[in-house]
Amino acid sequence: MPATPAISLLAISPFPLVAPGDDIATMILDAQLPWEDGDVVVVTGKIVSKAEGRLVRLDTVTPSTRAIELAAATDKDARLVELVLRESIDVIRARPGILLVRHRLGFISAMAGIDRSNVGGDEDDVLLLPVDPDGSATRLRAQLQEATGRQLAVVVSDSHGRPFRHGNVGVAIGVAGVPPLIQLEGVPDLFGRALSRASVVPVVDAIAGAAGLVSGEAAEGIPVVVVRGLRVGGEGGRAADLLRSPEEDLFARPEDA
Amino acid sequence: MPATPAISLLAISPFPLVAPGDDIATMILDAQLPWEDGDVVVVTGKIVSKAEGRLVRLDTVTPSTRAIELAAATDKDARLVELVLRESIDVIRARPGILLVRHRLGFISAMAGIDRSNVGGDEDDVLLLPVDPDGSATRLRAQLQEATGRQLAVVVSDSHGRPFRHGNVGVAIGVAGVPPLIQLEGVPDLFGRALSRASVVPVVDAIAGAAGLVSGEAAEGIPVVVVRGLRVGGEGGRAADLLRSPEEDLFARPEDA
Repeated sequence: MPATPAISLLAISPFPLVAPGDDIATMILDAQLPWEDGDVVVVTGKIVSKAEGRLVRLDTVTPSTRAIELAAATDKDARLVELVLRESIDVIRARPGILLVRHRLGFISAMAGIDRSNVGGDEDDVLLLPVDPDGSATRLRAQLQEATGRQLAVVVSDSHGRPFRHGNVGVAIGVAGVPPLIQLEGVPDLFGRALSRASVVPVVDAIAGAAGLVSGEAAEGIPVVVVRGLRVGGEGGRAADLLRSPEEDLFARPEDA
Repeated sequence: MPATPAISLLAISPFPLVAPGDDIATMILDAQLPWEDGDVVVVTGKIVSKAEGRLVRLDTVTPSTRAIELAAATDKDARLVELVLRESIDVIRARPGILLVRHRLGFISAMAGIDRSNVGGDEDDVLLLPVDPDGSATRLRAQLQEATGRQLAVVVSDSHGRPFRHGNVGVAIGVAGVPPLIQLEGVPDLFGRALSRASVVPVVDAIAGAAGLVSGEAAEGIPVVVVRGLRVGGEGGRAADLLRSPEEDLFARPEDA
């Protein structure tokens, strides 16, 4: 009954601060990791956004009437709420201190993922999520594979709150080179009994969550984590594959529906 | 910019099959790991339940009228639904194929965590969750610390579905020796800006989720994973600290409320 090291999480630390126009691939490659086939590179959406120049100055934003009303209902800055609405499809819950929306990328999150932490600047500087995280992941993967000659995958992560349970966990908002979900229906268990339709593993969310243990949310300065030792075959898939459709979701109905 | 191995997940594999009355601590110690202070031992609720003899034969269960009605509404076995009701406080959602409840331990899960996968026996054998997972974690921790002389933590994990997103992720249903949540309010970010009240890290859920990458859900036979390299200080706390109260939860209201 030996204990085998199954998975390891490597931190690139300290990672340099990322500015608009920076090439994240180059910054990662500068760490000169001994890359291995199968490594999954988890990159926070935050540095992808910074590199893509998704910083917005609130004093450039004119709130709409709806944003002003929603800001009053949620005790939020109306200019910030205006940005949230521009980045969203639907308002799911609005309460004092709480604004949950369905992001244009499909997932449900607080404030459309817009925040100020680790953004720098002053209180007027906020950061939007990347424009197309799957696309960012795909491009980053191509650059890293080209430079290293290894078979790699990339996950762009964000930190989401959860219904039912406290706290924020890492989830995948962009993927390339790793299947978002693994369907285990029909796969035999230890005793040969076929697993049910309910056995679905959101492997990239689990990867993003694990990487979050290393990245942290404060001043750790570890926006890139390499997950090594996963044996997840297969390509393809988009981060949106992780999302329940509004029709099938039992909880996400907007309150005014 | 060196890459440092931050966290590693060690699998005890193959782990022997667990039967009622088995001592899990002894089985783990048999692996003769080179234990280190700070190691977190993640044990699936499944083997804890098996050791505690939480196996139930459905042919010993007489369903109530309510269970029979709910079984018809959900296309489930009425005897199984009877067990779900006995293990639950509230029915949250009932649909054909779906029965979500608030478990007596406080969390919301499908079928009160009762299932047949990796249970063995025949279709009539089902396994309930451990009676008191925090207690199980505390006892296991004491045994492991006594035998190894190391400072260890224990997490009892389960696999839960999620609103909004597909798939099941590992969460903590029992904890000992590691704080369930880390509150980061006021902690400075990279630029010295204090993090907001929303910055809460459910560290034991993240640990359980990461361990799930190793354990899998099928025939992996890896019910014990050791997470090494976390620097999470502090004791205390119960798994229930992870749960939003029904009053504050924006999504968990029962439909008939």
